[in-house]
Amino acid sequence: MRELRLQRRRLHPSPRPSPEESAIPGSPASAVTWSLGELAVRFGCDLRGDPQTRVDSVAMLSGGPSSVGFVANPAYREALQATTLGAVVVAPSLADACPTAALVHRNPHATFARIAALLHPASALTAGIDPRALVDPAAKVDPTAQVGPFAIIGAGAVIGARSLVGPHCIVGEGVLVGADTRLLAKVTLCSGTRIGARCILHPGAVVGSDGFGNARDGEAWVKIPQVGGVLVGDDVEIGANTTVDRGALGDTVIEEGVRLDNQIQVAHNVSIGAHTAIAACTGIAGSTRIGRRCMIGGGTGIGGQLVLGDDIIITGFGMVTKSIDKPGFYSSVIPVEEARLWRRIVGRIKRLDLWAARIRKLETAAGIGVAGQDNDD
Amino acid sequence: MRELRLQRRRLHPSPRPSPEESAIPGSPASAVTWSLGELAVRFGCDLRGDPQTRVDSVAMLSGGPSSVGFVANPAYREALQATTLGAVVVAPSLADACPTAALVHRNPHATFARIAALLHPASALTAGIDPRALVDPAAKVDPTAQVGPFAIIGAGAVIGARSLVGPHCIVGEGVLVGADTRLLAKVTLCSGTRIGARCILHPGAVVGSDGFGNARDGEAWVKIPQVGGVLVGDDVEIGANTTVDRGALGDTVIEEGVRLDNQIQVAHNVSIGAHTAIAACTGIAGSTRIGRRCMIGGGTGIGGQLVLGDDIIITGFGMVTKSIDKPGFYSSVIPVEEARLWRRIVGRIKRLDLWAARIRKLETAAGIGVAGQDNDD
Amino acid sequence: MRELRLQRRRLHPSPRPSPEESAIPGSPASAVTWSLGELAVRFGCDLRGDPQTRVDSVAMLSGGPSSVGFVANPAYREALQATTLGAVVVAPSLADACPTAALVHRNPHATFARIAALLHPASALTAGIDPRALVDPAAKVDPTAQVGPFAIIGAGAVIGARSLVGPHCIVGEGVLVGADTRLLAKVTLCSGTRIGARCILHPGAVVGSDGFGNARDGEAWVKIPQVGGVLVGDDVEIGANTTVDRGALGDTVIEEGVRLDNQIQVAHNVSIGAHTAIAACTGIAGSTRIGRRCMIGGGTGIGGQLVLGDDIIITGFGMVTKSIDKPGFYSSVIPVEEARLWRRIVGRIKRLDLWAARIRKLETAAGIGVAGQDNDD
Repeated sequence: MRELRLQRRRLHPSPRPSPEESAIPGSPASAVTWSLGELAVRFGCDLRGDPQTRVDSVAMLSGGPSSVGFVANPAYREALQATTLGAVVVAPSLADACPTAALVHRNPHATFARIAALLHPASALTAGIDPRALVDPAAKVDPTAQVGPFAIIGAGAVIGARSLVGPHCIVGEGVLVGADTRLLAKVTLCSGTRIGARCILHPGAVVGSDGFGNARDGEAWVKIPQVGGVLVGDDVEIGANTTVDRGALGDTVIEEGVRLDNQIQVAHNVSIGAHTAIAACTGIAGSTRIGRRCMIGGGTGIGGQLVLGDDIIITGFGMVTKSIDKPGFYSSVIPVEEARLWRRIVGRIKRLDLWAARIRKLETAAGIGVAGQDNDD
Repeated sequence: MRELRLQRRRLHPSPRPSPEESAIPGSPASAVTWSLGELAVRFGCDLRGDPQTRVDSVAMLSGGPSSVGFVANPAYREALQATTLGAVVVAPSLADACPTAALVHRNPHATFARIAALLHPASALTAGIDPRALVDPAAKVDPTAQVGPFAIIGAGAVIGARSLVGPHCIVGEGVLVGADTRLLAKVTLCSGTRIGARCILHPGAVVGSDGFGNARDGEAWVKIPQVGGVLVGDDVEIGANTTVDRGALGDTVIEEGVRLDNQIQVAHNVSIGAHTAIAACTGIAGSTRIGRRCMIGGGTGIGGQLVLGDDIIITGFGMVTKSIDKPGFYSSVIPVEEARLWRRIVGRIKRLDLWAARIRKLETAAGIGVAGQDNDD
Repeated sequence: MRELRLQRRRLHPSPRPSPEESAIPGSPASAVTWSLGELAVRFGCDLRGDPQTRVDSVAMLSGGPSSVGFVANPAYREALQATTLGAVVVAPSLADACPTAALVHRNPHATFARIAALLHPASALTAGIDPRALVDPAAKVDPTAQVGPFAIIGAGAVIGARSLVGPHCIVGEGVLVGADTRLLAKVTLCSGTRIGARCILHPGAVVGSDGFGNARDGEAWVKIPQVGGVLVGDDVEIGANTTVDRGALGDTVIEEGVRLDNQIQVAHNVSIGAHTAIAACTGIAGSTRIGRRCMIGGGTGIGGQLVLGDDIIITGFGMVTKSIDKPGFYSSVIPVEEARLWRRIVGRIKRLDLWAARIRKLETAAGIGVAGQDNDD
C-alpha cells in the first residue's frame, strides 16, 4: 500500500521502513547511496576529499559520516569546523574551514537541495487507480498516474502522466492536472481549475472555491456567482490548508514556480507572478496583482485591487494597503514590547495629534518658522 | 456523476462540458439563454436596447455580445464606453454612457448578481444517497436531498429537502441541516450543530469543533469539556477551511444572512448578528458579540468578551480590543513603508515616552503652561 | 454507528439522544448523575449543602437545579447571588455569596473542568476497525482501538490502546499514535509523525506536512526536501485546521501538555515547551523555540530562529521579531480607532522622523542640552 506513503521522502533516521517495504522493487529505503565523486560531477561541484566516499542521506552539521550537510552563511564557520559529517556543501570562501570532504559550489543552498532530493527521493508511484477511488468514466487518467483510495475524479477531468491524486482528494469536473504533479492527500480542486506540471499540493489545500462576492440589497447580501476559474502554472507548490478562490469573472492566476506556504488565502482574481514565494498565514484580497520574484513574509495582509511590481519584498506581518512599484524591502511590523511600557506607548500614539499641536506652540513661542514639508498640519 | 460537480455554476467560457453532460436533462450547459426583455421584466430594470437580444452568460466589460456585465462606479464611465458586451447593468446616471444595451437599475450590483445566478445556475441535484456514503439508519435524509460519495451522516441527523451533503462531508449525530442548504465537500459538522435553510458551506469548513477551554492547575492545563452547540441561521455562507467552535456552555450563534469568507476562526460562544459580512483570515475570540450588518475587513482580530454594535465597519487588518457601540468606520492598520525608514520610525515609536519628556522640558523652559487633556503624563 | 459521534461529549441540553442510543450499554445519555457528596469527595471540595442532591450536567449560572456551574472571578459575585443552579463551584471567598449548594475549592476553574468531564464524558469507543477503513496489513492497531469509516492507516503505523482514528483520518506509514489518543475526524498525520498518549486532534488538523524550504537558483526556487519528522508529547491538544510541519533536518517538537487552538501554523523545526498554550490563528516561523508554560494570544506572529524562554505571555495580535528571555507580558497590539482620526495618526507616525528633528531644533534654540539615552538620533 505504497500509495499511502505521505512522507514522499525517504526519511532519516527514523522511522525504519518495515522489511516488506524495503523489498518492494524501486523502493529507495536504505539502498540509495552515492559517491562524492558522482555527486560532484552531477552537480558541478569542486570536490575536496575522497571521491570514493559514499553517502546516503542529508543531515545537520552534527550528523554522521554517511551524511551530507551544507553551510552557506560565513557566520557558521566555527560550527563547520566542528562538523562530524562525511561531507559538506560549502561556498568557495568556506572550503578551507571544512574538516571533512567539501563539495564546493557557488550556490551551496541550491546544490544541497538537489543532493537532498537525490538521496531522499519522493516515493515512487504505483500506477493505477485504487479500487476504492471513484473515477468518472468520462475522466481521463493517464495510465502512469496513481489515484489513491477514496479519491474522486469528476467527468471531463484529465490527470497527466506520472501524477498522483492522493487519498481523499477531490478533482472536480473538467479539472486539468498536468504531468508529474502530486496532490498528496485531501486536496480539493473545484471545477474550473487547471494545474500545471510538476506541482505539489499539500493536504487540506482547496483550489477553486468561490470568491467572496456579495452585493448589498437593503440589509441583506445577494451572492454574486463566481464563474471564473483558477490557473496554476508549472512547478508550483501550494501548502497545507491553503485556499485559492476561483475568479468572479476571469481567472485567478498563479504563475510558474510560485511557492505558497500553509494557510495562505488567495482571493478571487488575484494574480501572482512567476517565482514569487509567500510564507504562511498571508492573506491576499481580491483582484490584487503581485509581480515576479517577490518574497512575502508570513502573516502579511495585502489589500484588494493593488498592483505590486516585480522583486518586492515584504517582511513578515506587513500590511500592504497601496500599490508598490519600486523593488525593495517594505515593512510595517511593530515588535512586541514589555506590556506595561507598550500600553503607555499606545497612549502616546493615540495622542500624537495633541503632541504635534504642542510642538507647534513651542515653535511659535520660540519664533521658529516652519516651512516646506515639515509643516504637515 | 453530477454530484461531483464542485463548480456548482455553469462556468464561462471554459472548460467545455462533455457531450454526455449536456445531454442530462436539466443540465444548463449551453442551453440557458434569456432575452434582455425577459431580464428587464424579471428584475425591474429600465431597458434601453432591443428586448429580443439574447444573452447566455456574464462577463467583464471586455466580454462578447452574448454576455452581460455591470458598472456601478462612475469612475468606470470610460471603460463602459468601450465595452464590447451585449448588455450592461448600470445605474441611471451611467445609462447614457453605455454604447450597447443598458439594463438600468438603481442597484446595479445586486441586479447583476441576480442575473448572474439566472445565467449560471448552481448544478441541479441528483436526489438520493450515493452507495458509497454511510448514512445511519436513524438519520432522516429528505428524499429530495443528495448525499455524495464517502459522506457520513450520523444517527439522529436530519437533512432537509433539496439539500446537498457533498463528497467527504461528515454530519455528526443529531445535526440538523435545513432545506436547500449545500455542504459542498469535506465539510465537517460536529454533533450539536444546527444549520438553517439555503446555506452554503465551502470545502474544509469545520463547524462545532471544541472551543479552546482550559483551566490551569499547577503548570498543567485541564481541558474544560465544551458542551454547547452551534446555531447557524438561514442564508448563511461559510468559506473554505473556516472554523466555528461550539459553545462551552450555551451556543455559538451565527444569525441569518451572515457571510463568512475563507479561513475565519469563530471561537466558542461568539454571536454574529444578521447580515454581517466578514472577510478572510479574521479571528474572533470567545464570547464576543457582533451586531447586525457589520462589515469586518480581512485579517482582522477581535478580542474576547467584547460587544460590537450594529453597523460597525472595521477596515482590513484591524485589531479590536474594546467594545464598540457607535456605528462607523474603525481602523488600526499601519501600511508598509520602505523598510529602512520603517525601522527608524519604529525606533521613534518605542521612544515616544522619552520624546514626550523632552517636549515637557521645552514647555517648562518656554514658560508654556499645559492644562486640560493635553496634559497626558 | 457510535463511531461517528463527533460530539465526543454528552451535550446539554440539546439535541436529545435517540432512544436507540440511550439503550447502548455504556452510553452516558441521561443516565449519568452524581451526588454533590460524591463530587466533593472525588475532587476534594468543601461542600456547603445537601450531599444527597444529584446533578447531571454543567451549565451557566442561569441553568437549572440539576446542573453545576462555577464562579472564579469575584466580579461575578452578584450574578452568583442570583443563580438558579443546583450547585456552584466557588472559591472560598465567594462561598457565602452562593444561594445554593456550594462546592468550595481553591481552584474552582480546574475543579469545574473535572466535574464537567465526569458529567459529560467523551463518547465511549467501539473497539474495532470499520469495514470501510483501509488498514495496511503491516500496521499494528491495538484491539481496543477504534478505526472509523474511510480512515486510512499505512504500513508500519502503530495505533495505541483505546485510541480513536476517526472517520476520514489518514495515518501515514510508520506513524506512531499513543494510547487513549483521539484523532477525531479528517486528521492527517504524515509519515515521520509520532503522537503521544491522551492527545486530542480536531478535524482538519495536518501534522507532518512539508516545511517551507526553498533555495534560490537564478530566479527559480529549488525545493529542499524536508526529511525530519514531528514529535508530539502526551496530553497535547491540536485544534481544527491547524498545521504542524515536519522538520527540514531533525524534528519539529511539541512537548507534553501543549494546547494549540484552531488554525495555528507551526513551521518546520519549531519546538514548543511543555504546557504552553497558543490561541487561534497564531503563526510560528521556522526553527523558533518556545519555552514551557508560555501563553500566546490569538493572531500572534512569531518570527523564525527565535528563542522565547519559559513563562512568556504574548497578548493577542502580538508580533515577535526578537528573542525574549525575561518572563512577563509582552504586547504590540494597536487597537482600532475611529478611522478618520486613525488616518491622521498614521500620518503622524510616518512623519515621526521629521517631528524629532523639530524637537531637536527647539532644544537648540532653548539652549537645552540633551545627553545620554535621550539622544537617540
